[in-house]
Amino acid sequence: MPIRNLHDVFYPDSIAVVGASRDETKRGFRSIQKLLEDGFPGAIYPINPKEPEILGLKCYASVEEIPQAFDLALVCTPAKALAKVIEQCGKKGAKGAVVLAGGFAEAGDDGRRLQEEMVSVARQYGVRIVGPNTSGMFNTHKNCNIVGFSNLRKGDIGLLSQSGNMALSLVTEAQANGQIGLSTYVGIGNESDIRFHEYLDYFADDENTRVLVAYVEGMQDGAAFLEGLRRITRKKPVVLYKSGRTSAGISSAKSHTGALAGDYAVSEGVLRQAGAVLATKSDEIMSLAEALSLLKPLRSRRVAVLADGGGHATIAADSLSESGLSLATLSPESRARLAGILPPSAATANPVDVAGGTDSNPAVFAECAQILLGDPEVDGLLITGLYGGYGVRFSQSLTPIEMETSARIAQIHNESGKPVVVHSLYGSLYADLRPAPLAGIREAGIPVYDSLEMAVRCLQALAEVGEARSRTDCPVPAPAKRSSTFGQIVDICRAEDRAVVLEHEARQALADAGVPMTAKAVLARSPGEAVEAFRQLGEVPVAMKVVSRDIIHKSDAGGVKLNVSNVGAVKQAFDDILANGRQFVQDPDISGVLVTPMAPKGGVEVIVGVVRDPTYGPVMMFGLGGILVEVLKDVVFRSLPLTEGDARQMLEEIRAAEILNGVRGAPPTDKNALVQLMLGISALCTAFPEIEELDLNPVMAYPSGVGILDARILLDAAPQTAATE
Amino acid sequence: MPIRNLHDVFYPDSIAVVGASRDETKRGFRSIQKLLEDGFPGAIYPINPKEPEILGLKCYASVEEIPQAFDLALVCTPAKALAKVIEQCGKKGAKGAVVLAGGFAEAGDDGRRLQEEMVSVARQYGVRIVGPNTSGMFNTHKNCNIVGFSNLRKGDIGLLSQSGNMALSLVTEAQANGQIGLSTYVGIGNESDIRFHEYLDYFADDENTRVLVAYVEGMQDGAAFLEGLRRITRKKPVVLYKSGRTSAGISSAKSHTGALAGDYAVSEGVLRQAGAVLATKSDEIMSLAEALSLLKPLRSRRVAVLADGGGHATIAADSLSESGLSLATLSPESRARLAGILPPSAATANPVDVAGGTDSNPAVFAECAQILLGDPEVDGLLITGLYGGYGVRFSQSLTPIEMETSARIAQIHNESGKPVVVHSLYGSLYADLRPAPLAGIREAGIPVYDSLEMAVRCLQALAEVGEARSRTDCPVPAPAKRSSTFGQIVDICRAEDRAVVLEHEARQALADAGVPMTAKAVLARSPGEAVEAFRQLGEVPVAMKVVSRDIIHKSDAGGVKLNVSNVGAVKQAFDDILANGRQFVQDPDISGVLVTPMAPKGGVEVIVGVVRDPTYGPVMMFGLGGILVEVLKDVVFRSLPLTEGDARQMLEEIRAAEILNGVRGAPPTDKNALVQLMLGISALCTAFPEIEELDLNPVMAYPSGVGILDARILLDAAPQTAATE
Repeated sequence: MPIRNLHDVFYPDSIAVVGASRDETKRGFRSIQKLLEDGFPGAIYPINPKEPEILGLKCYASVEEIPQAFDLALVCTPAKALAKVIEQCGKKGAKGAVVLAGGFAEAGDDGRRLQEEMVSVARQYGVRIVGPNTSGMFNTHKNCNIVGFSNLRKGDIGLLSQSGNMALSLVTEAQANGQIGLSTYVGIGNESDIRFHEYLDYFADDENTRVLVAYVEGMQDGAAFLEGLRRITRKKPVVLYKSGRTSAGISSAKSHTGALAGDYAVSEGVLRQAGAVLATKSDEIMSLAEALSLLKPLRSRRVAVLADGGGHATIAADSLSESGLSLATLSPESRARLAGILPPSAATANPVDVAGGTDSNPAVFAECAQILLGDPEVDGLLITGLYGGYGVRFSQSLTPIEMETSARIAQIHNESGKPVVVHSLYGSLYADLRPAPLAGIREAGIPVYDSLEMAVRCLQALAEVGEARSRTDCPVPAPAKRSSTFGQIVDICRAEDRAVVLEHEARQALADAGVPMTAKAVLARSPGEAVEAFRQLGEVPVAMKVVSRDIIHKSDAGGVKLNVSNVGAVKQAFDDILANGRQFVQDPDISGVLVTPMAPKGGVEVIVGVVRDPTYGPVMMFGLGGILVEVLKDVVFRSLPLTEGDARQMLEEIRAAEILNGVRGAPPTDKNALVQLMLGISALCTAFPEIEELDLNPVMAYPSGVGILDARILLDAAPQTAATE
Repeated sequence: MPIRNLHDVFYPDSIAVVGASRDETKRGFRSIQKLLEDGFPGAIYPINPKEPEILGLKCYASVEEIPQAFDLALVCTPAKALAKVIEQCGKKGAKGAVVLAGGFAEAGDDGRRLQEEMVSVARQYGVRIVGPNTSGMFNTHKNCNIVGFSNLRKGDIGLLSQSGNMALSLVTEAQANGQIGLSTYVGIGNESDIRFHEYLDYFADDENTRVLVAYVEGMQDGAAFLEGLRRITRKKPVVLYKSGRTSAGISSAKSHTGALAGDYAVSEGVLRQAGAVLATKSDEIMSLAEALSLLKPLRSRRVAVLADGGGHATIAADSLSESGLSLATLSPESRARLAGILPPSAATANPVDVAGGTDSNPAVFAECAQILLGDPEVDGLLITGLYGGYGVRFSQSLTPIEMETSARIAQIHNESGKPVVVHSLYGSLYADLRPAPLAGIREAGIPVYDSLEMAVRCLQALAEVGEARSRTDCPVPAPAKRSSTFGQIVDICRAEDRAVVLEHEARQALADAGVPMTAKAVLARSPGEAVEAFRQLGEVPVAMKVVSRDIIHKSDAGGVKLNVSNVGAVKQAFDDILANGRQFVQDPDISGVLVTPMAPKGGVEVIVGVVRDPTYGPVMMFGLGGILVEVLKDVVFRSLPLTEGDARQMLEEIRAAEILNGVRGAPPTDKNALVQLMLGISALCTAFPEIEELDLNPVMAYPSGVGILDARILLDAAPQTAATE
């Protein structure tokens, strides 16, 4: 059967409820109740052999007895015998089945067998399975609620979750917010049939979804997930909360879903690379979604702050700075215009503090907003303090002025095309005092926050979305050619049954893949060849290193000699290295000794590596070299293939990024060369999935060019030929 | 006049309102209105020469005309002529005056003169001045509200703020919370008379205040502030928000109060050292205050999590770990008991996930709580998820069970003496659905949070309070003796009119102050003495360094020779160093050449320094050496004198602390020697306020002992003797 579009599954015209019940505490009852309550427009077929009718609907003894074809089955019965049920659904033309029961793959091997059996039947009949072990789904735009959450608000935020309780938390928060609503919710449960990335594609295409929220614990196919994420984030923002970030969290996540939760440093890098806005606290998820559904991205990071008190102005400035946003430098003209309408004690440099200038006339806020949003240096506006509460705080006579002011600000916001967010201490702290001016501004599409820090966090997310778009628009460089040098090297390694690519081979391959290799390296097979290499390199001091498939840690084996600077020493070093190697390993296969000029002084030591992440596939790591970086874990990850924008961002994203720009009088390092190196490695590793691990450590980043001091490539186990010959 | 106790000021029995008004928008009206509304029990004397009465109270033309003595004046009139008003108040026996007007020191030199004049008169009459430029104060326990905030809830949280709007934010949040209330609020305004530390002492002594919240932008006397903070935190928790943390924030803070806002890295270190719980977001302040007012400190950092779903369990585990808390390892007995009452799919390892085991009977929560709080490995409990909402989510019949369960949990909480916090998605998201079970648990003194992360943050604060108590209980070591070696060195420096303490002098002084000086250092004044020193040191390779008041940067002056290893080279090095020095500076005063053994390899390079912070006075900095640490700003600060607990915490608090424990097979460094070094420096700098700056950089921390490779001390400008002789 061709694989069905999930739109067919989540916009059903008719639903069968397998395991329908008259027991009010059961899902088989409550789902039918919700469907009726919410006005589901299509047919509902309860299945229960013991009941004639439920909630006024005729009951069928089995799926087979339903007289018509139907679109979707909600399956409330236990794990056993579900393959049979799915088969019956398939025969009735069902496009999808939402399977609630647990006891499948998450419960061990027996469950896994049951799950595989069910999925196999489903695929035979073209029935797509949501779950099993799911809380269900709803689609407010189809009045189809088969998860049993109450009081859903229809809206444009999609929700995809691996935890039913987290979904309930987020839905409840949306209700409380009062302005935001949801489109489709899907509880993923065990990713038995429909893969995570298929859900992402559904939401990418769903015209009722403007922003997607995803609560992710782990996924079956991380690489496909990332591709799906890249596709959807080109169309709409995704707020993603990845749980299992710490080892404590991961061990809990494993026991929960059986899915493999990756290390967060990797997740953080690759998810952001794919364009997601990462929520790191569960309490910021819905606020971020609201802001992203309402507002345009920030063009850049320059924000104006409009405050009615120094305290909030100062906190806003701190918070912006800590979030990587900046206070826009207002033009002299803007400052003069502000000075013209504010009292002398007001601060007209950003943050603008009206200093009482709005106490008797809050309309001044709109005038200030117009000046600030009209300033070309300003990309977005944060209003913070008492706005919306002047009627409560000072005099009820100010409320009508605030109402008009809100309308004015909404208009200025629309005309400017720049995002505006409001923090107000009267935001929503107590319902009975919620003043109308804030309701007005919220209805006009400007989010209002109780928390100043949350308002700033949302501005930060608006900047991230803008930046991610420009980054994902970067072209992806072509992979290296399979017919290149490295293709031959792989063949040789396979023929010799070795996983270790020797250093001189690795250097050839890297050069071939476009990695800048400033220093020459010559493999010498005899003392004479070593002397020849020394002369060829210009008789500068050289480093000499053993090349052997049997010796990985060369220094430990006495296989490295540095600063060798005359012919006699070169001969001696060659002999010593071989002797040491033979002492270290019994009968080693030594290919020779690599002779390279000593690295020039004065560069910055960095490390570039590629590993295969068990979830996401090949990922590149970048960081500074040295023990301190290791302790501080100051490294960043990206999945391959890398774009130029990705590579440049990796250089910026390490905490010690300043080092690369030159500090204490040191010249800046050659970032273009580093980027070229990273892209070359990406091209190589993308073309050769055989590469299990690649380590350039250290790489010296110089003011001009880079020097690779050691290159190590390991291949994966060769594909097994038939076991018997 | 003796300085009055602030209790007299903030618990007044009678109040004069200078600048009383009939205009409903004026403070001179609204304050009187509030005093009457809130039932202020004492006399109120409005002062206005043009009105016969205001709000039914007889009006007086001037303060002089009030027939009785009174306790407190609220002064609503403008800056000019206030000295006169204060004088009149003083003559009427007033103990305090709250002065609202701006236009004083914050407005420039003219204002500063007005302020000084007013304070001078106030001191003459023993009138304590709150402000000027303050929003006012209230004391709910005296029904005395002269700030004009509405709907105050009486309670035990004190509030001290340098921003009126921030105070309003926090008071509004307390109102919305519904459970917490305030005791005294003081808006500090310009710290003209009463110093910040005096306010701290007031709150320390105030029996109606259990926790103090302080919003701080800057203070006049940072050292006194820290002492006050140490005093109050021994008695009750202080939640402190220091604004002006970033350079953006600081520039805004300066324009607001004119107070000097210090650098946050220093503030963070010294404020935490003094026992404050530092809020870094304004939206966490009141939640922290609530938790600290209700709950006992955490005994240590081991927390149990009780969740009714895997999502919340995982997020809780992540959040705990990111907050430096740990998941308690439950005893096998506890796990067995949990397994006995929970379904087979439940997780009985911490975090405990009941996995549906409470859906039909929430009373199981209380049973779990009893098991968890009874486990000696558990110091505190976090309940997260749907608790309190089972009646809403599943069936109303569960609500009475939840009510009983809340009472049970409250009882278990009290009996255990361990803190319990609850996160519930039904916490307070919408008032109309707030279920009674949560109200019950809140009334019993267990805080309930909407945000899981905030619940964890509060547990973290409970741990911090416990740890701060144990640290501030450390004895403060005695300062060094003024009669020590360094006293004589200071005398010599003063006599020679030099600020630079020479390295051999500094080394003597440090040794004398108990700083472990493992390596000998000998000052040689001639090549012969240098050779003598070389022999005396055992003819090991030595470093030789110029000692001169005129040469600070010795390397730049060619004044350092390393690895000098034979008699001839020692002579040569001596001559070269002198020649280089003479070329570098014209006619330098060279005291000699310091000869020290080369430092052994293998230590960790650290830096220990003391600077005088403009706000807090002498502070010690500790960090690892090297450029990367500088870029990452991985340093910590503490004010002097240091206790042993402070020094040990500094070693733990740098992000790269692991390096000191030995990584990649390196042995751990000798932390005791580092602590001894830091305490010795503290004792020296405490005894000698003449020390402007002290730098030991680098210090090598070895597996046994420490080596000081360079020691630099600068004295401040000598006290000026009479300018004319």
